Amino acid sequence: MRCDAVVIGGGIVGLSIAWGLVRAGRDVRLVDPAPATGATYAAAGMITPVSEHRPTERALHALAQESAADYPAFLEAIPGGGGCGFEAASTLLVAVDDADRHAIDELAALRPGEVESLTLREARRLEPLLGPRATAVRRVQEHRVDPRNLAAALLAALGDRVVRGAVRSILHEDPNDPMSPAIGVRIDDGVITAREVIVASGLDAARVEGMPFPVTLRPVHGDILRLRVPGRLWPLLNCTLRARVHGSSVYLLPRADGTVVVGATQREHGGASVSAGGVYELLRDATAVVPAVAELELLEATARARPTTLDNAPLLGRAAPGLIIATGFGRHGVMLAPIAAASVAALVDGVAPPHIAPFRPDRFAASPVPLEVS
Amino acid sequence: MRCDAVVIGGGIVGLSIAWGLVRAGRDVRLVDPAPATGATYAAAGMITPVSEHRPTERALHALAQESAADYPAFLEAIPGGGGCGFEAASTLLVAVDDADRHAIDELAALRPGEVESLTLREARRLEPLLGPRATAVRRVQEHRVDPRNLAAALLAALGDRVVRGAVRSILHEDPNDPMSPAIGVRIDDGVITAREVIVASGLDAARVEGMPFPVTLRPVHGDILRLRVPGRLWPLLNCTLRARVHGSSVYLLPRADGTVVVGATQREHGGASVSAGGVYELLRDATAVVPAVAELELLEATARARPTTLDNAPLLGRAAPGLIIATGFGRHGVMLAPIAAASVAALVDGVAPPHIAPFRPDRFAASPVPLEVS
Repeated sequence: MRCDAVVIGGGIVGLSIAWGLVRAGRDVRLVDPAPATGATYAAAGMITPVSEHRPTERALHALAQESAADYPAFLEAIPGGGGCGFEAASTLLVAVDDADRHAIDELAALRPGEVESLTLREARRLEPLLGPRATAVRRVQEHRVDPRNLAAALLAALGDRVVRGAVRSILHEDPNDPMSPAIGVRIDDGVITAREVIVASGLDAARVEGMPFPVTLRPVHGDILRLRVPGRLWPLLNCTLRARVHGSSVYLLPRADGTVVVGATQREHGGASVSAGGVYELLRDATAVVPAVAELELLEATARARPTTLDNAPLLGRAAPGLIIATGFGRHGVMLAPIAAASVAALVDGVAPPHIAPFRPDRFAASPVPLEVS
Repeated sequence: MRCDAVVIGGGIVGLSIAWGLVRAGRDVRLVDPAPATGATYAAAGMITPVSEHRPTERALHALAQESAADYPAFLEAIPGGGGCGFEAASTLLVAVDDADRHAIDELAALRPGEVESLTLREARRLEPLLGPRATAVRRVQEHRVDPRNLAAALLAALGDRVVRGAVRSILHEDPNDPMSPAIGVRIDDGVITAREVIVASGLDAARVEGMPFPVTLRPVHGDILRLRVPGRLWPLLNCTLRARVHGSSVYLLPRADGTVVVGATQREHGGASVSAGGVYELLRDATAVVPAVAELELLEATARARPTTLDNAPLLGRAAPGLIIATGFGRHGVMLAPIAAASVAALVDGVAPPHIAPFRPDRFAASPVPLEVS
């Protein structure tokens, strides 16, 4: 099989990249044994570049800001993209104790003009089910999307360009030199040759043979709940709530379909399965902020690992001639999918967008490879 | 189709009754669209006639005591009954606050000689993972069984005597007189004629046509969790723990397969689905008693309705010639299955065991039917 580009990995990032290349007129294949069943399946879908801004992650949040701005156009170019639940929504930042309040006020200082203070009376007018333990509320204008619908729309748009299988290795012009140009991939039952190989397979990227340098990703496990709001409580919420409850974080994201997503724990020890303690903390903190959460039906408790780098920023750039890496998006895969797609499309066109410079994929390799990024 | 007896309902009670009749040499059919998927599927499997004794439920607990005593012989008569996880186990009654302690001491007063006081030091020697919030522990020698395995063994033993379908109505000798002798049942695709019809279909019993009087059952919904103990914490517990945590009840039942069952909420309002508040309370109270529960994997959260009568005791006895009712076992279906099976076998033989007299199935009917129980 021959094509212009082969994308390894069918999470939200790989799917978006593949579709971006199709839109640019490329002949594309995407290889994944089970597309959209990893972190994408768990993701809540907050497009919240302001409220997720951490002071130590400047470059990342510039990227997030740009990606969030690209979202409407990105969705418009996907058949069925209008049905992905993308909508403008206020994010309410909610604090319970003094330290929680301090944490949300830090963000307000970091993004002046974008974080609005609300009185509790104003907050309760917006969200009547906000509980009495909330002591401070700030508002940011952001967006949300439904990642499962988005992944399904991308999968449908890609159609039979999606190959359900596993990549065993990346093939190079000189089989003995992984720095020589990549020329395709070996899959279970054959070979796909391509001008460009794009590695977007999350934690599996560390296991693909033929990488020019080791890709180190850590699995940041998380539990997330999906709940159904009974008719008498509908809509439970209008805004997306991001709360700090005695130092612990929880968010509640309502959808038009009458469900609410409550997430998400973060742990690097312990197993990949749903953690009883994680579920307990989510329900404890969610009911602390919105007591009526106790009246909801628990539809689903899901655990997935977020493919995360050592500095929490993605690996995004060219790794060798014919080889691009776009993975390690951690908690931000859904938010960053449009910019990942646009950046890889530019790289394939021979242009390295300046905003990806901080995300060189070899930045953790023992001896960074001298590399002309172009 | 003709047979000696047709059992409506394939929960643990109906399955046990059908198997008891097969053992007595009867030609039996059991009809259920989905056997063992109702309350039986959720049940934990505590055979705890002492620790579930309520002062107001004397007759019920005499029945429970007898049923628990019958369990070993009952299982021995089932092919594969040895693999149902039946075992002797201490039940530890655990209290957190003064009122909780008062509640467990009431039981000790009710069953003198059967409830042993343990010091906290003795309790921690038995259960090293018992948390610091336990302030009083009592011990009772009881048993446990795995209801899913038991139901599977009974289903296998019954084999093609199990008809997967729904009963539409009970047929009577005089089609216009539901007090006339029952002669069989109408199912979706035909009729099964039988000398005896046994109604054991739980909440569905209220919907079967042709009953001589209305059967009133209330669904008592409950949530129950199944968790897996990671190797480093195995075995989490040896005993079955029944705890009261600030007035709320929780139990933890460990199994040899490395899982722990945590249950169970009780609610009569709200939906039939898993309740977020219910799961929260179970995890909150279980971690209060055994903090290491937070380290377990959450395998399953299940909600089912327990078919419960107005006085919490079952409906067990003859309702009309050829018609026996054995349902409404509420929280006690698994514990009472052996005595239900033995009692119905006796009724079919024309003997009414005296211990079932308090459980006349017509005791809530508007005008109790004058009935020779024989």
